[in-house]
Amino acid sequence: MENNIQRIPVLAVVGVGLIGGSFALAMKKAGLVDKVIGVGRGLANLEDALHHGVVDEITTDPASAIATCDCLMLATPVGQLSHLFPLVEKHLKPTAIVTDAGSTKGNVVGFAREHLKDRLPNFVPGHPIAGAEFSGAKAAKEDLYHRKHVVITPLAESSISAVAAVSAWWAATGADVRSMTPELHDQIFAAVSHLPHVLSFALVDMLANRTNGSLFFDFAASGFRDFTRIASSHPEMWRDICLANKSALLQEMYDYQAQLSKITALLEAANGAEIESIFATAREARNAWLHQKQQSLLK
Amino acid sequence: MENNIQRIPVLAVVGVGLIGGSFALAMKKAGLVDKVIGVGRGLANLEDALHHGVVDEITTDPASAIATCDCLMLATPVGQLSHLFPLVEKHLKPTAIVTDAGSTKGNVVGFAREHLKDRLPNFVPGHPIAGAEFSGAKAAKEDLYHRKHVVITPLAESSISAVAAVSAWWAATGADVRSMTPELHDQIFAAVSHLPHVLSFALVDMLANRTNGSLFFDFAASGFRDFTRIASSHPEMWRDICLANKSALLQEMYDYQAQLSKITALLEAANGAEIESIFATAREARNAWLHQKQQSLLK
Repeated sequence: MENNIQRIPVLAVVGVGLIGGSFALAMKKAGLVDKVIGVGRGLANLEDALHHGVVDEITTDPASAIATCDCLMLATPVGQLSHLFPLVEKHLKPTAIVTDAGSTKGNVVGFAREHLKDRLPNFVPGHPIAGAEFSGAKAAKEDLYHRKHVVITPLAESSISAVAAVSAWWAATGADVRSMTPELHDQIFAAVSHLPHVLSFALVDMLANRTNGSLFFDFAASGFRDFTRIASSHPEMWRDICLANKSALLQEMYDYQAQLSKITALLEAANGAEIESIFATAREARNAWLHQKQQSLLK
Repeated sequence: MENNIQRIPVLAVVGVGLIGGSFALAMKKAGLVDKVIGVGRGLANLEDALHHGVVDEITTDPASAIATCDCLMLATPVGQLSHLFPLVEKHLKPTAIVTDAGSTKGNVVGFAREHLKDRLPNFVPGHPIAGAEFSGAKAAKEDLYHRKHVVITPLAESSISAVAAVSAWWAATGADVRSMTPELHDQIFAAVSHLPHVLSFALVDMLANRTNGSLFFDFAASGFRDFTRIASSHPEMWRDICLANKSALLQEMYDYQAQLSKITALLEAANGAEIESIFATAREARNAWLHQKQQSLLK
């Protein structure tokens, strides 16, 4: 199997945190890479990465690493890609392959189309689904992607060989690799992750702003605790995710508001049968999902 | 202290499940009751209650127990109260005290005003906040209410001595007893319990009804799992709660829909600062709530 996977003489990882660092370690473990260059803005984290064997060389100059590498992993926050893509267009070797690890894809593809020009076929967007509590190069581990989902969202312009290589590299990390359009990717994560965060933040904010809000919290119990767990997430990070996935998230919010309007009308009409039917569909679907998750090897 | 609490020569408990049975056991443990009559529709559960020492006598005839008792605990599903209250009005001793354990209060008060007539002053509505995984007389335990909230919602017509007695009985179970209007009670539980259930059911049902719904569930992770935990709740029971608390729940749904409309408009306008401010308020309020819960003796 491994013989068929394209080797990576030089891998450059821009943003050597949990995600980029773990990709580098997994490529090393699979024996697919000869040298890893870590690129970042802060020397302290790069030196950590070097010290822990995550990378073999470090630099704060992206252009030099981009010019040298055969595979370029862009694992920075998505906001930095609009600055990095012009360097990729200018410096990347024509045979090199570029991928990213951004958690939204429509906006990344937009930046790529704007900046990559002749290098657009070299680019295969990706999203490894592996959040974790810890961050930074020190948190990187070679098995982070084992049994996790990785979504790639190839463009019509992406070269077939680049798509095959990026898929094979992710598969070599032990991940379950799925391919879909950037639009479907963004819709799925808007629905199952971004929307629930907004709904949870929205409820807690609504109660917190009441003059007698503390009375409400006083009687909140375990159902409330679990429903609002994601409202303890980082506000700035989730602001950025909402803005980055604005278009897909708005569509989910419109759909959800239509759903609430429907349920509100059923309750106004005291239509118990239809309300019970919605609740029963939800319970059945969730229990089936839980069952499948437990059966599956994926977490 | 105990000397000041009104004793209960005969306690009748209608509906000897977890809630009613645990109240009986707690009164026995506190030494406040001489005899407990268990009233129900099914002999099997009543015989369990007798066998486990939860009650001392059993009957399937509510009228006889109501005529005999000094304290009547109505711990049936709320739907049965409209049948029981006429019997209370007809048979209750003028000196006896009536309370209930229904999880909604506005509708119970409505039934009471309709049916209790001369016995309305004897009635003090209550709601012990102690859900549990198990049900039936066998699940009853004397310390179920220890460190739990119990809300009583006295009416203007309730006699002062009845209110004092019901408060003292609940306090003797180890509960933290709070008094408020039925309207505020219903609003609080609509906001912190019933609304989150509806929101969680609504999201899962929305995704389950999509033709490509399984794709969405495939990528749902731990945030989704916690947000939707309450969507695995019992559909029929939650239909009944929603209908029983219709008016307060509708008000919360209107407020929440206004909140979502506001956030949608902010996202349409890409107003990151305001979105972050809502998220930050929510996170701060939730973390403060969690901290207070952990500090408090109450679960």
